[in-house]
Amino acid sequence: MDAGKVSRILKAMEEQGMPQMIISDPPSIYYLTGKWIHPGERLLALYLNVNGDHKLVINKLFPQEKDLGVDLVWYDDIEDGVEILSRFVEKDKPIGIDKVWPAKFLLRLQELGAGSEFRNGSMIVDYVRMIKDEKEQQLMREASAANDKIMEELVPLVVKGYTEKELDAIVREKYAQSGHSGVSFDPITAYGKSGADPHHVTDDTKGKRGDSVVLDIGGILNDYCSDMTRTVFIGEVSDRAREVYEVVKEAQARGIAASKPGNRMCDVDLACRNYIEEKGFGQYFTHRTGHSIGMEDHEYGDVSSVNEDIIKVGQCFSIEPGIYLPDEGIGVRIEDLVIITEDGCEVLNNFTKDLIVVPEE
Amino acid sequence: MDAGKVSRILKAMEEQGMPQMIISDPPSIYYLTGKWIHPGERLLALYLNVNGDHKLVINKLFPQEKDLGVDLVWYDDIEDGVEILSRFVEKDKPIGIDKVWPAKFLLRLQELGAGSEFRNGSMIVDYVRMIKDEKEQQLMREASAANDKIMEELVPLVVKGYTEKELDAIVREKYAQSGHSGVSFDPITAYGKSGADPHHVTDDTKGKRGDSVVLDIGGILNDYCSDMTRTVFIGEVSDRAREVYEVVKEAQARGIAASKPGNRMCDVDLACRNYIEEKGFGQYFTHRTGHSIGMEDHEYGDVSSVNEDIIKVGQCFSIEPGIYLPDEGIGVRIEDLVIITEDGCEVLNNFTKDLIVVPEE
Repeated sequence: MDAGKVSRILKAMEEQGMPQMIISDPPSIYYLTGKWIHPGERLLALYLNVNGDHKLVINKLFPQEKDLGVDLVWYDDIEDGVEILSRFVEKDKPIGIDKVWPAKFLLRLQELGAGSEFRNGSMIVDYVRMIKDEKEQQLMREASAANDKIMEELVPLVVKGYTEKELDAIVREKYAQSGHSGVSFDPITAYGKSGADPHHVTDDTKGKRGDSVVLDIGGILNDYCSDMTRTVFIGEVSDRAREVYEVVKEAQARGIAASKPGNRMCDVDLACRNYIEEKGFGQYFTHRTGHSIGMEDHEYGDVSSVNEDIIKVGQCFSIEPGIYLPDEGIGVRIEDLVIITEDGCEVLNNFTKDLIVVPEE
Repeated sequence: MDAGKVSRILKAMEEQGMPQMIISDPPSIYYLTGKWIHPGERLLALYLNVNGDHKLVINKLFPQEKDLGVDLVWYDDIEDGVEILSRFVEKDKPIGIDKVWPAKFLLRLQELGAGSEFRNGSMIVDYVRMIKDEKEQQLMREASAANDKIMEELVPLVVKGYTEKELDAIVREKYAQSGHSGVSFDPITAYGKSGADPHHVTDDTKGKRGDSVVLDIGGILNDYCSDMTRTVFIGEVSDRAREVYEVVKEAQARGIAASKPGNRMCDVDLACRNYIEEKGFGQYFTHRTGHSIGMEDHEYGDVSSVNEDIIKVGQCFSIEPGIYLPDEGIGVRIEDLVIITEDGCEVLNNFTKDLIVVPEE
């Protein structure tokens, strides 16, 4: 296991009176052990104890060649893995539980009385993962640089007559061809009205003159995620759409300006939101401003009006305000990722945010 | 909601003294409502009560156009969805919990005291889903017929010099091009030694003369999964490999013969396993014989030596014995899906199980 990361977690456990905990989600286990293990529906549990007696309970179907720096405890498909795990738990002490641990395991652990109290322990891991170390920051930079390049290739394609689904397939292919292990999330390649619906499902719509086109894309490069959005226009842009675009662009710039240590996460959200409200579009900005990101596209710590957590150096999150006017078929969102620095933030995306009208051919 | 399916679940709840339960996994919610809703990390909870007072607690980000036949209860990202859900729970009665419900929700529900006892309630849904109705059986047939066709196209490609990864990409493309929404699971396209390791990760290996090639593939067609395995040989087959192949083939046939109402699931496993042991390969058959399948590739009810459940008409599962000799680089698995009929089973895969040696070009 990564000694630095483990010691930060153990320190947080001690501070929060959590003597033991179970970590089960593959990204957190990868974060600590450097090994991806995808157990599907099977139990995989990293048991951490502040006394240093850690165990990784793992199914025999996932043999490990390299030393993970933690004792492995094996079970097979006809054994009760949770019962085996429970033997290591100090039954008279509280235990932290991974927020994503399936109920079938938690209910069994509770039935076995393995713990005096069961608490959601994920905040401990989440707050440690939220602060990216130097190596992680570099990986985030590289992923976003690759994403900028794909956006650059993608923008001219919006006038080529592709359907949303076809454009979606092209985006996926571009990630596959440029060293990505996959997309960070299902790409959004939404023309006109589709882009005005933030939950539109990619379909066979084709773009037409005057359409706003929302391109929200990201890939996974060396285990770290990119995620950016640009909105461009086909052939021409109406005055109304231009007004909306400029409001979103300025709101996003204000969000970036508010992203610095000492501010709260909600200050970033409100910097965007207040400006959009001021311009009369408040009711059309229907989602939070952004989300933390790293090994997963959505990590703990959202940029919302209710998150009062103080921003810290090394955090990485998205800033993505949007305005959606379904009745007018106009949807605009602009998104960059930032890393918090000593005195502000570094914006990871360099693709222009100036309004682009792609000429029809 | 589907009245027939709901009433089968309510009946099972009553029989098991479970007055209320929470269903959260998207396939089960689709099974009952006919609507796929993928809430990601957000709460989605179908609350069922034997008194008929059902609710679907759902985030405002997932607006529903069509009537799902159940009261919708909305919450947004700054509300406590579980607290809203808890208002409907009868606090003095036990409550069934979906086996996959993330711990963050269950721990919160427990904190709110919403239920006198928390039990894994998924068996109720699983046993209902295990029995496929006429319509579902037809969809399973169609998915497997399409899979047969893809296998037929795939087999000749093993001598074309593709790496495993390239073959994997070809398989995915074939599903995409033939109306599938995706693959049921990551395809296995494993040459020689790779096929002898049941947990091999697809890599850049190329096939060579004499290799066994394990092709384990399946797609999702109209929401139902296919899953089949064939093992073929490149250019020639050694006597040893032929022996192994014929043992697996006969074992699989015995598994099919044992698949009938009244037998137990373990009888199917043992029909395969005993024959393989008898032939001296027992230690090289390292996994269970199969798994139930339907809307998900792996559904509840495995074909293993310890599952004593009685087989019922309408069940659908895989029969996939294998023998893996890593030191000799030989791996053979043969897999079909079956549906249980009144007097036996219907085999859904018709692609030949005779030993195939694909001539090198």
